[in-house]
Amino acid sequence: MIKRTLISFLIVFHTYPGYCRREPSIATNIPWQQVAPGVWKGIVGTPDQISPLSVAEIKPRIEALTSLGNLPFPAQLNEGVAEVHNHLTSLRFPLRRGEEIYGLGLQFKSVKQRGTIKQLRVDHYGGTDNGRTHAPVPFYVTDNGYGVLINTARYLTVYAGTGVRKDSNDPPPEMNRNSQRDWNPQPYSDAVEIAIPASGTEIYVFAGKNMMEVVQRYNLYCGGGILPPKWGLGFTHRTPTLYSDQEVMNEVEQFNAKGYPLSFVGLEPGWQSRSYPNTFVWDSTRFPRPNYFVNELLKRHIRVNLWINPYVSSYSPIYKKITPYTGSHTVWVGEVPDFFMPQARKLYKQLFTTQHLDIGVSGFKVDEVDGYDNWLWPDVAKFPSETSAEQMRQVYGLQFQKMTADWFREKNQRTYGLVRASNAGAASLPYVLYNDYYNHRDFITALCNSSFIGVLWTPEARSSKTAEEWLRRMQAVCFSPMAMLNAWADGTKPWSFPEVEKQVKDVMLLRMQLLPYLYTTFAQYHLEGKPPVRAMPLVEGFNYSANAEKTQLHSSDNPYTTTVVPEVKDQFMLGDYLLVAPLFAGDTTRKVVLPKGKWYDFYTGDYVGDGEIIEVPTTLNYTPLFVRDGGIIPMMPPMLHVPENGEKVGLTVRHYGKAENSTYLYDDDGTTFNYENGTYSLFKLSVTHEGGKLKGSQSTVKADYPSGYRDFSWKFMTK
Amino acid sequence: MIKRTLISFLIVFHTYPGYCRREPSIATNIPWQQVAPGVWKGIVGTPDQISPLSVAEIKPRIEALTSLGNLPFPAQLNEGVAEVHNHLTSLRFPLRRGEEIYGLGLQFKSVKQRGTIKQLRVDHYGGTDNGRTHAPVPFYVTDNGYGVLINTARYLTVYAGTGVRKDSNDPPPEMNRNSQRDWNPQPYSDAVEIAIPASGTEIYVFAGKNMMEVVQRYNLYCGGGILPPKWGLGFTHRTPTLYSDQEVMNEVEQFNAKGYPLSFVGLEPGWQSRSYPNTFVWDSTRFPRPNYFVNELLKRHIRVNLWINPYVSSYSPIYKKITPYTGSHTVWVGEVPDFFMPQARKLYKQLFTTQHLDIGVSGFKVDEVDGYDNWLWPDVAKFPSETSAEQMRQVYGLQFQKMTADWFREKNQRTYGLVRASNAGAASLPYVLYNDYYNHRDFITALCNSSFIGVLWTPEARSSKTAEEWLRRMQAVCFSPMAMLNAWADGTKPWSFPEVEKQVKDVMLLRMQLLPYLYTTFAQYHLEGKPPVRAMPLVEGFNYSANAEKTQLHSSDNPYTTTVVPEVKDQFMLGDYLLVAPLFAGDTTRKVVLPKGKWYDFYTGDYVGDGEIIEVPTTLNYTPLFVRDGGIIPMMPPMLHVPENGEKVGLTVRHYGKAENSTYLYDDDGTTFNYENGTYSLFKLSVTHEGGKLKGSQSTVKADYPSGYRDFSWKFMTK
Repeated sequence: MIKRTLISFLIVFHTYPGYCRREPSIATNIPWQQVAPGVWKGIVGTPDQISPLSVAEIKPRIEALTSLGNLPFPAQLNEGVAEVHNHLTSLRFPLRRGEEIYGLGLQFKSVKQRGTIKQLRVDHYGGTDNGRTHAPVPFYVTDNGYGVLINTARYLTVYAGTGVRKDSNDPPPEMNRNSQRDWNPQPYSDAVEIAIPASGTEIYVFAGKNMMEVVQRYNLYCGGGILPPKWGLGFTHRTPTLYSDQEVMNEVEQFNAKGYPLSFVGLEPGWQSRSYPNTFVWDSTRFPRPNYFVNELLKRHIRVNLWINPYVSSYSPIYKKITPYTGSHTVWVGEVPDFFMPQARKLYKQLFTTQHLDIGVSGFKVDEVDGYDNWLWPDVAKFPSETSAEQMRQVYGLQFQKMTADWFREKNQRTYGLVRASNAGAASLPYVLYNDYYNHRDFITALCNSSFIGVLWTPEARSSKTAEEWLRRMQAVCFSPMAMLNAWADGTKPWSFPEVEKQVKDVMLLRMQLLPYLYTTFAQYHLEGKPPVRAMPLVEGFNYSANAEKTQLHSSDNPYTTTVVPEVKDQFMLGDYLLVAPLFAGDTTRKVVLPKGKWYDFYTGDYVGDGEIIEVPTTLNYTPLFVRDGGIIPMMPPMLHVPENGEKVGLTVRHYGKAENSTYLYDDDGTTFNYENGTYSLFKLSVTHEGGKLKGSQSTVKADYPSGYRDFSWKFMTK
Repeated sequence: MIKRTLISFLIVFHTYPGYCRREPSIATNIPWQQVAPGVWKGIVGTPDQISPLSVAEIKPRIEALTSLGNLPFPAQLNEGVAEVHNHLTSLRFPLRRGEEIYGLGLQFKSVKQRGTIKQLRVDHYGGTDNGRTHAPVPFYVTDNGYGVLINTARYLTVYAGTGVRKDSNDPPPEMNRNSQRDWNPQPYSDAVEIAIPASGTEIYVFAGKNMMEVVQRYNLYCGGGILPPKWGLGFTHRTPTLYSDQEVMNEVEQFNAKGYPLSFVGLEPGWQSRSYPNTFVWDSTRFPRPNYFVNELLKRHIRVNLWINPYVSSYSPIYKKITPYTGSHTVWVGEVPDFFMPQARKLYKQLFTTQHLDIGVSGFKVDEVDGYDNWLWPDVAKFPSETSAEQMRQVYGLQFQKMTADWFREKNQRTYGLVRASNAGAASLPYVLYNDYYNHRDFITALCNSSFIGVLWTPEARSSKTAEEWLRRMQAVCFSPMAMLNAWADGTKPWSFPEVEKQVKDVMLLRMQLLPYLYTTFAQYHLEGKPPVRAMPLVEGFNYSANAEKTQLHSSDNPYTTTVVPEVKDQFMLGDYLLVAPLFAGDTTRKVVLPKGKWYDFYTGDYVGDGEIIEVPTTLNYTPLFVRDGGIIPMMPPMLHVPENGEKVGLTVRHYGKAENSTYLYDDDGTTFNYENGTYSLFKLSVTHEGGKLKGSQSTVKADYPSGYRDFSWKFMTK
């Protein structure tokens, strides 16, 4: 009897190390197990049940990963060590001299991350790259051909090449600040070190022949990138919060009357009977006939997006039923559903389906799931599922994306919305990140950084002080994953600044013309894992490098004369061929760093340079765009709406430079998930030399969807 | 056999809850145990071995606490609850309507803390009051007559009245932002909630009839405030880092020749043979005869303070021996001693005693124990004592203060130095905090906040852009715990701006004249626990209150129209009688909030107001100073050095206003700890009405030290 007790006791004792911890306090190597071609998983200690990847319920695209091919495990990471001790998991991965790190969340100030420290934590971005941001994705990729994902929902701290150990094999030299003018306040560090307040974690390693391939594997493992509905790539505009159905209709009509394209309109909190906190039901005075309203807009090719935040008003029909499944703390006196409780998910699904999805609402803008600490629950909050407040915060926005995406998927209808918090595993989720921070240059840097971590970001346009700023913001928006005007608070319209209304219209129409190219670019994101927006380090031929620049000693501002590494964070590629160099208010000239190879002006087709830094003059009329030699860009007419399923559309295919080339053009119905079963069409667009002249031709290589694209006409831009 | 194994096993299992956690996840009341009159202790879960109070080795001044009297336990706190679950300790203490919170670390932007969230963590202050600061003291005091100290060395997060719970007894109303213009983005919160990443904590509660009494009990329980050596209250100046002994001597001579007072001089890193990292030994070329150098300065009444940071160079004589007792990571390639290891303490004591204390060095400036994350070890660092990197960071500066203070105490010699990191329990430690942040207004707010948490702060003067800024900074410095010029990097001297050199000299000499008053004020800090600098909320009769001000909606800068509560954070009391209203560059007028009672101009004795807000004109000539009715201020002649032990000094005692009053004047040898055995003298200074006239008289009430104060002359400032 005693015996059995003892034995069973010991069994319990030994089989729940997380429950009763006895981890040795010694750093050990991490056992790696291959989980897909070029993808490995490591387990340290006892990982938490809840992780970003489990919440996102990722479905790795094994076949796509297989066709990408296999690679050996990145040898460098065999030196990685881990340790779990007293609820702290410590990881260390080596870095090599000259190796650069990218990723580590949606940062706004810099692209290069080596030498930084970040506590990756879901929060509204506060103006410093300290790790508190909307998508604190614990993933980094280096130019040594690998990426590392820490699949944890804890507030982890990443020391990305800052710590210097006594036992380092490649230690920095000791210096003497008294005598050495070049004393280095940032001694060389040979490792990434990570502190996770948990008893263990999962780690994923992604290999790649280059950084793009690493990012592709990360995205494909997370299910492949999102393919938005076609209308999602058109222009969107959000109306003042207390507008009635009629006022919204009038505004929509104005876009049409004035010749500005519009694909979906966003309603702010006022569409609800009560908001902050939310009832999630239509306000009967402003929207007496929501069904009719939504359908009238649909007739005009306009979809409706609804603002919400997840916090429940006592006036909401689900309030009484959901109360047992909400957290201990409220947000703006609204109850906080615990979506780990199936009952809470069910109540939301019922209400949202009947109120919104069933009448044709196209998607949501999910606000305030990111924090500003004061607006979220404290870390002492408790939830019925026993999920810790910390973990709940790290995955709340991610979980809401997944839950709502599934509702639409059940109706075989694609959605495309906005959200203010995300995390690892989000690549396949139909949401674009946005925030209240409004620095234009930093918005573009965030756009670049989004490409390393499998998220989408929109540098939305809102109010502007001058016509020039307004134009520059609208121009940048039109080359982003969601072309959004979010000026509901101040009521600015595309035509609000007469001095630039034509230029604003031009760039909005150019966005529409580029739709076939854009849609194919997103198809690439889904099929190959290549992000639609690409930071320059991900681009073939890009090899800009500059030495760290010494700075001036200042007793208050710069007491340690820290060095600054110049980097390219204000230009990016959109798809395979288009290099975008946004302009900012006040710019009189613009430096553009061209990757190796010949480049041409998008508008004129003129040769501009080859692997060099060029200076281009600025004009109000357009954003500098450049195309790679051989670039093929299919464009449609400047329509005011996105083509509906099967709508006939003539295409003009542009070619730049002198090189022969061929590329694919993707098309499908634009609204359903039938493409996942192969119901899509692929055109091959080829340019060859024939008798010293360039000749273009298109052929259908896959026609499972009857595309409306026709009347291909070729335009050779470079004379 | 089996039986015994099982039993012993179960014993182990049950007696080490921290080792093998089984805490119930239910919030329970905290058992309080009285530990001194008006002081209680509560234990939650299994507190860590290492805490700020244990590191500071506090010696509660029970007799002083007893004479302050006893009080009942603050009833409000009986509602406090605690919970320990999965390495998270959660605490909740109730707040009442209108109750205001002060303290929570050395903050720079605001004095009122209710409605804020802070992760209290040792770091260089970064410009936002998020809790990362030089002294993240986990102590708050409220105007309901109590204070709470969380005695933990973890990164705790304090939600100071922000969280709103479903189960609140005093919940805020639900509002509707759609229809209510006065929608409140900060709903009323009825509690302070605290998250500590640990399996338990110690908590101390301090009662008080008012906030000052709460702070007194906190300071007395921590050993009473520090009484600096007299010379520590004189003026100090730091010389350029590569100065030789002769250059320092020349600069010292200049102070004397030009008639500017100087009491101690600070040598920057260049005094060492190597620095960053440090050898801690004199550089033989710049300082061939340190002993002679220090003595020559002493003859001139000038003490020497040495800059260091604790990180060891491989060229230091203790390097080889201390290496086994240093952490896994280096700071600027210097090894990081683990001062929890007696061997490390011993090596430091030997080296510092022979190199510095034995030749008369008066103290140290301990730099870079605070962070700027990159400059400290990461949270994954390990130390031989098995102290976690987190705890080491929270107490490193505190521990270094205590260790060095003990060395001087053994020689019965007082020290007074500078340090950049501290924590709870520091009141009796002879160090003043400083940093590289240089915003003048924020420096003064920090000075105010230092008075709630038992630390000292100096708004040091460094470089200045204009003569006016220079003067304003020098004026403010002269009314702070350490009158320091720290312009070694740019070489600015008190006379560097000829336009204001006279005004600078005036305020430096006024500082010297006030020495008897200042020294008595610090004696109060030691004997009664009253801080020398006092934020206005600690001052009797101060009852300024203003309603929260609504702000303008701005989609980027202020999306939630948060309210702002006006507060008084730019004026303070220095001792019982002197109200200081510093001026800042650009000020043309100055608002001063006067507590209830009559107030008089320090310079003229004129009546200025009573419990009202007055507007005073600004002049370059002096800082606005005001004295309470009946204020008695003993002043000495404008000497260039602080009186040595026994030196004869005639006193002029000023009286302001019309009220009768009596106060004490404290004196002792100024350099030893003999005062702790009662070897000090107390004069009673009394002013009475006699035949309609005011008459002043002094009497000796304690004469265990033969004071040099004599020839008392009375000056009645108010005509």
